[in-house]
Amino acid sequence: MDLYFATSNRHKVDEASQILGFRIKQINLEIDEIQALRVHEVAVEKAKAAYSMLHKPVIVEDTGLYINALGGFPGALVRWLVDAAGTESLCRLADASSDRSAYAETCVCYADDKGTAVFSGRVDGNVTEKPRGKNNFGWDTVFMPKGFSKTFGEMTAKEKNKISHRMLAFTAFKKHIEQLHGSI
Amino acid sequence: MDLYFATSNRHKVDEASQILGFRIKQINLEIDEIQALRVHEVAVEKAKAAYSMLHKPVIVEDTGLYINALGGFPGALVRWLVDAAGTESLCRLADASSDRSAYAETCVCYADDKGTAVFSGRVDGNVTEKPRGKNNFGWDTVFMPKGFSKTFGEMTAKEKNKISHRMLAFTAFKKHIEQLHGSI
Repeated sequence: MDLYFATSNRHKVDEASQILGFRIKQINLEIDEIQALRVHEVAVEKAKAAYSMLHKPVIVEDTGLYINALGGFPGALVRWLVDAAGTESLCRLADASSDRSAYAETCVCYADDKGTAVFSGRVDGNVTEKPRGKNNFGWDTVFMPKGFSKTFGEMTAKEKNKISHRMLAFTAFKKHIEQLHGSI
Repeated sequence: MDLYFATSNRHKVDEASQILGFRIKQINLEIDEIQALRVHEVAVEKAKAAYSMLHKPVIVEDTGLYINALGGFPGALVRWLVDAAGTESLCRLADASSDRSAYAETCVCYADDKGTAVFSGRVDGNVTEKPRGKNNFGWDTVFMPKGFSKTFGEMTAKEKNKISHRMLAFTAFKKHIEQLHGSI
């Protein structure tokens, strides 16, 4: 199966290929993401745009961090806060309430000539009071998954990838394509 | 001059017509706004999309609130925070620093067969500690323009419209089209 992953991030393609058990192809398409709080909407619109440019089966992925006390904000928009004001600003955002609970969500959206299908992975946890660990990726250092005493930033890549929202979303997608195409 | 304003908000069309001194036509186009911190980028992409659907001279408008201590965040994305967590959440966001300064900015983008032109209006001020006044519009109750002891939410529409970022942007646009087309 020839499958493309529309992303500029080579590392994401490697990780996805590993989870899926076959090599997917990277393609870098210039697509503006739409404004939305939910990664689901962002991913669906991006996948439609990618398919209409490529005319081949393609996936896109979007990941967000939803702070419960803020009605889910910043959600899919988290990277704009991190880019503008740094990762620690997420801690300050969570200070607005005594409830520091949040969840990380990845949506993988697959698009082909039949339409789109979305697969999501969610990990609940808390926003820490300070960044902890090294900044592997985005806001890893300020998110501590439920049941763990380490942030994603304090885990090794292997530890994180076993439990992450991204892994859950790609695993759900894997089941779907295995059902469609048999073991690949 | 036949000019369209792509917006779902009738009130914005009335206000713009009043500033411009001639009637502009409202058109409601379904256009997803792109993710960006700056209203400039959002407005330009939206105007291009509007012109490609309409093939007639069209303006769009986008407005944001930039908190200086947060590198400008939430900027063009402010409505997602207000929708998700209410206007007061902007006060809590500003609590993250002793510097509560912010600015409101409107960009009007005009698009025709020659391309796009952007006109902006900016008002500096501060985010208050609590909402004050009635909520005329968006985050009016938490933004106090420099040199005033009232928030936009405590001003009458007339008082606000004399000094607002939106008025400044439309006034800049008016000068431009008057130069192009003579007095209309």
